[in-house]
Amino acid sequence: MKELPLSKVYQLLEPGPVVLLTTARKGRANVMAMSWHMMIEFEPPQLACVVSGNDYSFAALRATRECVIGIPALKLATKVVKVGNSSGRDIDKFARFGLTKIPATRVKPPLLADCFANLECKVIDGRLVNKYNLFILEVLTAWIDPAQKNPKTIHHRGYGTFVVDGEIIKLASRMR
Amino acid sequence: MKELPLSKVYQLLEPGPVVLLTTARKGRANVMAMSWHMMIEFEPPQLACVVSGNDYSFAALRATRECVIGIPALKLATKVVKVGNSSGRDIDKFARFGLTKIPATRVKPPLLADCFANLECKVIDGRLVNKYNLFILEVLTAWIDPAQKNPKTIHHRGYGTFVVDGEIIKLASRMR
Repeated sequence: MKELPLSKVYQLLEPGPVVLLTTARKGRANVMAMSWHMMIEFEPPQLACVVSGNDYSFAALRATRECVIGIPALKLATKVVKVGNSSGRDIDKFARFGLTKIPATRVKPPLLADCFANLECKVIDGRLVNKYNLFILEVLTAWIDPAQKNPKTIHHRGYGTFVVDGEIIKLASRMR
Repeated sequence: MKELPLSKVYQLLEPGPVVLLTTARKGRANVMAMSWHMMIEFEPPQLACVVSGNDYSFAALRATRECVIGIPALKLATKVVKVGNSSGRDIDKFARFGLTKIPATRVKPPLLADCFANLECKVIDGRLVNKYNLFILEVLTAWIDPAQKNPKTIHHRGYGTFVVDGEIIKLASRMR
């Protein structure tokens, strides 16, 4: 994994990919699938995300205030769905689904070796957690796998339907 | 436009499309392009979005607490970029770019006839507006244009690069 400049992080999350979120608590790591996230600031990169109170990851994220967001490409799609269909209450998802952990540098939750990008994050604002399960995160360090060229991400449309990245178009935008 | 059940709204926004946001203040409507949004609740559908304090729409949204989110398909991409490149301070974007307004039913900002979906929204929580420009919205009524079949949305990757919806895959997910 190669370090990615923090100024480029928004370009990974802004298009709306399904991501994986790892947490760690009492020496045990877990991973979930997540689609409800958005950027809220370019640099330092900050984002908002919703982790349901029903998810086993919720308590870990709230207590430890740390997570890693891994971004999977299309080739991981079936594993992503298996992660989403199961709970860390019952199984070790990393072992069960063959997801390789790599130690992160600034947080305890692990990076995911199979993801083309990994973002080490801390919770910086929890004011909307009780009402909406909404966490505000800041990305501390970002990693990219240079071996995965032009990864296509997947976008959840509900009930097992996903749209895969298609054509890339370039328009005369002045928007960052 | 045909009314869409509120339970289906999340399927439109969850994949991360670029959207258009209309506001209205003192009898004058405006429209901006937006990529920083996410669902936060299925039903009633609630979402979070970031409207920069630099955007002319910010003051209108904060003061009136109403907006419409229109979802454009690929065919509108060049107009979407023009909307994003300009400010309502300077021009009437609807007239300049040929975007047709339709009156909404429960809010003052207009629907956009050219979008395949439109969501009438009110601001329900402004606690994170001052610090992050983050608004919590609830969708009151949703509309879909049945004439636009299988619309492809666009997803912003920064600096005028957009990825268009590609292949649709179906996986054995138990996730809603």
